[in-house]
Amino acid sequence: MSQLTDLAPQFIRAIAPYKAGKPVSDVVRELGLNPETVVKLASNENPLGLGSKAKAAIAQAAADLGRYPDANGFSLKAKLSTRHSVGADQITLGNGSNDVLELAAKAFLTQGTNAVFSQYAFAVYPLATQGCGAQSKVVPAANLTHDLTGFLAAIDDNTRVVFIANPNNPTGTFLAADQIRAFLKQVPSRVLVVLDEAYNEFLKPEDQYDSTQWVAEFPNLLVSRSFSKAYGLAGLRVGYAVSSPEVADLLNRVRQPFNVNSIALAAAEAALDDAEFLQLTYETNQQGLNLLQSAFERMGLPYVPSYGNFVLVKVGNSDDAGLKVFDALQRLGVIVRPVNNYGLPQWLRISIGLPAENQRFLDALPEALKVLG
Amino acid sequence: MSQLTDLAPQFIRAIAPYKAGKPVSDVVRELGLNPETVVKLASNENPLGLGSKAKAAIAQAAADLGRYPDANGFSLKAKLSTRHSVGADQITLGNGSNDVLELAAKAFLTQGTNAVFSQYAFAVYPLATQGCGAQSKVVPAANLTHDLTGFLAAIDDNTRVVFIANPNNPTGTFLAADQIRAFLKQVPSRVLVVLDEAYNEFLKPEDQYDSTQWVAEFPNLLVSRSFSKAYGLAGLRVGYAVSSPEVADLLNRVRQPFNVNSIALAAAEAALDDAEFLQLTYETNQQGLNLLQSAFERMGLPYVPSYGNFVLVKVGNSDDAGLKVFDALQRLGVIVRPVNNYGLPQWLRISIGLPAENQRFLDALPEALKVLG
Repeated sequence: MSQLTDLAPQFIRAIAPYKAGKPVSDVVRELGLNPETVVKLASNENPLGLGSKAKAAIAQAAADLGRYPDANGFSLKAKLSTRHSVGADQITLGNGSNDVLELAAKAFLTQGTNAVFSQYAFAVYPLATQGCGAQSKVVPAANLTHDLTGFLAAIDDNTRVVFIANPNNPTGTFLAADQIRAFLKQVPSRVLVVLDEAYNEFLKPEDQYDSTQWVAEFPNLLVSRSFSKAYGLAGLRVGYAVSSPEVADLLNRVRQPFNVNSIALAAAEAALDDAEFLQLTYETNQQGLNLLQSAFERMGLPYVPSYGNFVLVKVGNSDDAGLKVFDALQRLGVIVRPVNNYGLPQWLRISIGLPAENQRFLDALPEALKVLG
Repeated sequence: MSQLTDLAPQFIRAIAPYKAGKPVSDVVRELGLNPETVVKLASNENPLGLGSKAKAAIAQAAADLGRYPDANGFSLKAKLSTRHSVGADQITLGNGSNDVLELAAKAFLTQGTNAVFSQYAFAVYPLATQGCGAQSKVVPAANLTHDLTGFLAAIDDNTRVVFIANPNNPTGTFLAADQIRAFLKQVPSRVLVVLDEAYNEFLKPEDQYDSTQWVAEFPNLLVSRSFSKAYGLAGLRVGYAVSSPEVADLLNRVRQPFNVNSIALAAAEAALDDAEFLQLTYETNQQGLNLLQSAFERMGLPYVPSYGNFVLVKVGNSDDAGLKVFDALQRLGVIVRPVNNYGLPQWLRISIGLPAENQRFLDALPEALKVLG
């Protein structure tokens, strides 16, 4: 037996399994909690669930699930094409934006090449890179933020992909449009820049920018978007890339033909039309962020001002503080995300919930912090 | 621009995009057909749609789609574990069995290695192999059937994976259990044998066998199953592998954490309990197969006796016969699958439909055959 798995590529055997947040049902089962009162602020999901237009589309799509999905996502791509004023041949659909990131890695990375990304960036970047046998070049963060000057210094002849998250998960930090444009002007045009904008819709109007319009000027730019966050479709898995047609053609070659399921296609299309739900999501998030950040200030807890739908807060100074407070909160029925696996063991990431959920967290926090003595 | 995509790995640039069957809506749009009367017998889907238990589970799961799916598929794996009397750690869930096949390729294939499979086998085998930069060793078919002796001769020191489909798509041919077991005894234990059983549930009781029970004896065996065919969940995307725990561990390392969506998890679990629907599906298929095969005999059209939910029929002797008759049928509102891309340009693959759909096809066929003059 051992001979079989020993012959798998070394770079595959070296991958550590990804650890996803536990489903609420698992935690409830293990701790004997009351499922009615458990609050989950762990996975940057939309606490409002999904909008009424998406719900209606789902009910309609459910009638035809015996058929394969449209492998080309004709209808959703047409709508995204109009939305972004780009050609449908510039869009690649993914089974969540995780899939989009993997497709970009698979299309451009192989053994002997490398990808550049920041310390404290999304866990999928190193995983996708390693899965292709390529090397990860991790640029130290500057004050928890992407150091784009450091990125430029890290890019070498073997660099094929740069991953930038904006806003970044798990830190919540943000790069202004002019910083990214200045970076794009300096990156060699032979390097693909993946701009991961999963949290774009939570930006304030004054911070918004439309990077999909930059692709014409920078054909090595790929903008990745998600329906899992503001659009509330995390359970359905749909994301997309906007890139040059040439890059999209490569991504579509390595894409599994039916990677996006029928219900996801229908729900995403409907969700794009639900401006009202998106606005409510934005406002709910802003109010929750303000509530949590104000409370952290009153409590004297350091936090990173967030541009996303979550906030990073420093709960202690010891390297087991994050896990200890996470555990204590969980026993009180509040599930948040420890970020020790991101190299931030003194911090916790709190997703913004509904007003009552945020308050449950704030009520539990002082009690939980007592575990640090 | 060209420099960017020129730097993508050569084996990626060499991939030709997969061609999926057109969605009915596209064909209807293009030909100006009446959508109410168009019959689609092209993608080996379940003409009954999905069962009532799956439908009920979908309606229930739809309430919680704002949350991420359970990354570990705890509940579905538990049920599959009981069903097959294997450990939950022997199961890997996929976004359709296409995903399972890709995971097996990614975990074991890289440049310098190869995969062995048959001529006239599922189009995903060469695609998944090429996507990893590995070589495809195609074994000529013997009378349209897998030549397992030829497989053994083709396996060399660099072979890491063998793909066997049973029943095979697009030919519908079948290997008996003792043939496969004899093959497994002779394959080097360092080579992963992927036994793709997407059409297993359509086998007659006398042909059924349970290869998941062979994994204990042959730890290099991976059995792949699908919910897209008999279970009627093609639109939701869910398949799974049963393998040794060691192989499953590798597959789970390269798996995207949320690869199976929430609705698919819930529907698959419910579908497993719907023995009545599965039986109705089996009977509907047998009746349809008998109807089509008898008609082909009466018409003097050569066909391959099928063990799946589709049948391969030779419509002419010229190398454009398949495409010509496909096109003529389509203009008559009957969509079937040309298989020239499988190297079978004189043949068509007809999926078994509902009785009325099968009859529509048989009524249209003589008219369509006239295009051959």
